[in-house]
Amino acid sequence: MKQKSAEILCIGTELLMGNTVNTNAAYLGRELAHLGVNVYRQEVVGDNPQRLRESLEQAFSRCDIVITTGGLGPTYDDLSKETIAAYFGRSLVLDPPSLARIEEHFRLLNREMTENNRKQAMMPQGCTIFPNPNGTAPGCAIEQDGKLAFMLPGPPREMKPMFEHYVAPYLMEQSDTKLVSRMIHLFGIGESALEHKLHDVMVASTNPTLAPYAKSGEVMLRVTARVTQGEDGESLLAPMLETVRQAAGEFIYGIDIGSLQNAAVQKLLEKGLTVATAESCTGGYVSKRLTEVSGSSQVLGYGVCTYANQAKEQLLGVSHSTLETFGAVSSQTAKEMADGVRRLSGADIGISTTGIAGPLGGTEEKPVGLVYVGVSSKYYNHVLELHINPRGDDAREYIRYIASSHALHQLWKAANMA
Amino acid sequence: MKQKSAEILCIGTELLMGNTVNTNAAYLGRELAHLGVNVYRQEVVGDNPQRLRESLEQAFSRCDIVITTGGLGPTYDDLSKETIAAYFGRSLVLDPPSLARIEEHFRLLNREMTENNRKQAMMPQGCTIFPNPNGTAPGCAIEQDGKLAFMLPGPPREMKPMFEHYVAPYLMEQSDTKLVSRMIHLFGIGESALEHKLHDVMVASTNPTLAPYAKSGEVMLRVTARVTQGEDGESLLAPMLETVRQAAGEFIYGIDIGSLQNAAVQKLLEKGLTVATAESCTGGYVSKRLTEVSGSSQVLGYGVCTYANQAKEQLLGVSHSTLETFGAVSSQTAKEMADGVRRLSGADIGISTTGIAGPLGGTEEKPVGLVYVGVSSKYYNHVLELHINPRGDDAREYIRYIASSHALHQLWKAANMA
Repeated sequence: MKQKSAEILCIGTELLMGNTVNTNAAYLGRELAHLGVNVYRQEVVGDNPQRLRESLEQAFSRCDIVITTGGLGPTYDDLSKETIAAYFGRSLVLDPPSLARIEEHFRLLNREMTENNRKQAMMPQGCTIFPNPNGTAPGCAIEQDGKLAFMLPGPPREMKPMFEHYVAPYLMEQSDTKLVSRMIHLFGIGESALEHKLHDVMVASTNPTLAPYAKSGEVMLRVTARVTQGEDGESLLAPMLETVRQAAGEFIYGIDIGSLQNAAVQKLLEKGLTVATAESCTGGYVSKRLTEVSGSSQVLGYGVCTYANQAKEQLLGVSHSTLETFGAVSSQTAKEMADGVRRLSGADIGISTTGIAGPLGGTEEKPVGLVYVGVSSKYYNHVLELHINPRGDDAREYIRYIASSHALHQLWKAANMA
Repeated sequence: MKQKSAEILCIGTELLMGNTVNTNAAYLGRELAHLGVNVYRQEVVGDNPQRLRESLEQAFSRCDIVITTGGLGPTYDDLSKETIAAYFGRSLVLDPPSLARIEEHFRLLNREMTENNRKQAMMPQGCTIFPNPNGTAPGCAIEQDGKLAFMLPGPPREMKPMFEHYVAPYLMEQSDTKLVSRMIHLFGIGESALEHKLHDVMVASTNPTLAPYAKSGEVMLRVTARVTQGEDGESLLAPMLETVRQAAGEFIYGIDIGSLQNAAVQKLLEKGLTVATAESCTGGYVSKRLTEVSGSSQVLGYGVCTYANQAKEQLLGVSHSTLETFGAVSSQTAKEMADGVRRLSGADIGISTTGIAGPLGGTEEKPVGLVYVGVSSKYYNHVLELHINPRGDDAREYIRYIASSHALHQLWKAANMA
């Protein structure tokens, strides 16, 4: 069977106006990729039948499958079904089971069903109907002349389960390939340097493919293989994973791990270790990111945010003479903060940050962006000196984020060595 | 001048594959609406020159302005500039100032600049270049035959400031009116309740207009007046601001203040007060948000993140019997944490959080989403009980964010009362 291709067409003026972020398109893109369906375009149009019709015609001139979201609701400007049915030359007919479900929905909510809700049970003639247990508007599929349209509701909590329970099985039945992929997470190398190392591999790669993704201070590499039924995806992926490991293994902190904080918490759990944080310039960013991870309460009992020198002395036992001689932003202070919080808490690993996040407070000797990250543990003691380029409008946020990433990476490293 | 219309064209395979949610399109939609530019379509294509070219041609057949994001990076698949320049019949030429900025960027990072980065300084002939202080790829505008294309970088932290500092003024200059606006920040009222109070005003408003914006747990109202040269915007805005104050004044915490943390820090500075935080379920989120604000070191000396009960007792002096009798997630513990951190630090105001952020750890009696926020000060002592609806894919993040917002709002309130 030839490779299917699809376009995603999201309908809603609230998306165009930016009142709603289009998470549906991202979800559908991800899910369709996994099903082996190529998506070459996403489009957003408002609740306007003429522009929707144009977009639909253009989309079907380029691909086999169009998935729409939105415009199935009860109000006068919800016109997706009418427009798409008309494109296929079909009329809308009442679907009694859908009407019964909508009536039931209102009965359960103890609310009166207004007349315009009947509109939601009017479905294109001959379509396959998808019930919507999470809302009132059913979805549907229309297949005709090699063209396949899916109409899904707009709210993500209605759309996603409908895709999972009806659309994915519908497509799976038609396909003989699927995609398997791995996301490799790296830290400490830039996107262009990584590409430099792997450029030839990226360009030459076809199955699996290798593609870089950058996010603030981190890089990821996605390895994706297309496999037919019965073929072993893992064995297709393995040689590429090995190539990446050989080229940049020292920078890899995890595969499919999601984030530095996930990697750090997972490594601590795995090794049965605990951590305590002592933050100055990051002001709680490290503990905030660690505690994003469910289960982090098992590894993080204590964190302190010691912005003031007095707090550094009183809570962490940083010596007055260290602060006097070297200053709060110094390698020595970072070390004593990490040691201090480890001692105070009894944790296995102490992590500290002290630096100048700006925009004020920099000097020639200690400029904005200078940050020290301290690690204290039985196996690994280190102070990292960072010079973070204070760039952009929100340099303060950037410096603090990058500093917290380095702290999490140092924590992961310390746990990994234990 | 006739009303301009624009399309947004986002370029990036990571958007099509759903690895990145397209927040850029929402941002641009919102900002363009604010500038009075109509947006009828958003489109996403991958890093594919042919499909980009097709989309560009179609877009310009429908509208005057196309704004692209993405594809300006250093790698071989970043082809936006080449493709768009070719559409306008222009070649790329080296822009020495852009190259100098990119070289400086790598020098500051102490990283070697690889050859492919030079590509980012190659710009379409005769374009207007927008420097990018937040990254390496500059943006630009090309204007020709009544068509106007803007090319902006993909990462939101580079794209947004470029839009604000270059694109918006560029568009405004072509217009003979300008917009003046005020953002009213409210907390403690939902968008629909606020809309209910002000529905008639919103619908009837033309100049100034009144429009609601919701963000996680907060609502903002934007009052916008369109003024011609020489007209006084302030006097147009004043009556509308007064109308809003009368309808919902009790929920307003600031105008053009940016965020709860800005409002809180500003109020503390104004009153010469200090604060200390004691966080359990928010794990540093409150101190992280407070220390986002430059100058916060003058008001926040101490923060502790006491995830473990032992830490609550040892650092904050929460009594063992309180923890035994009422549990860590209780009004009593929240009160003792706030009192404790205030005593420990000597700060004027102590703020605490304790709750169940989930997804695990909830019980029937104390479900996920139950959070207590404590405030301790000379003038205002209070424990707030919150029942945060654990909704969405990332309920944990949502609960922690909303809890930290309430803590910041309570802090603002305490400072305001002092």
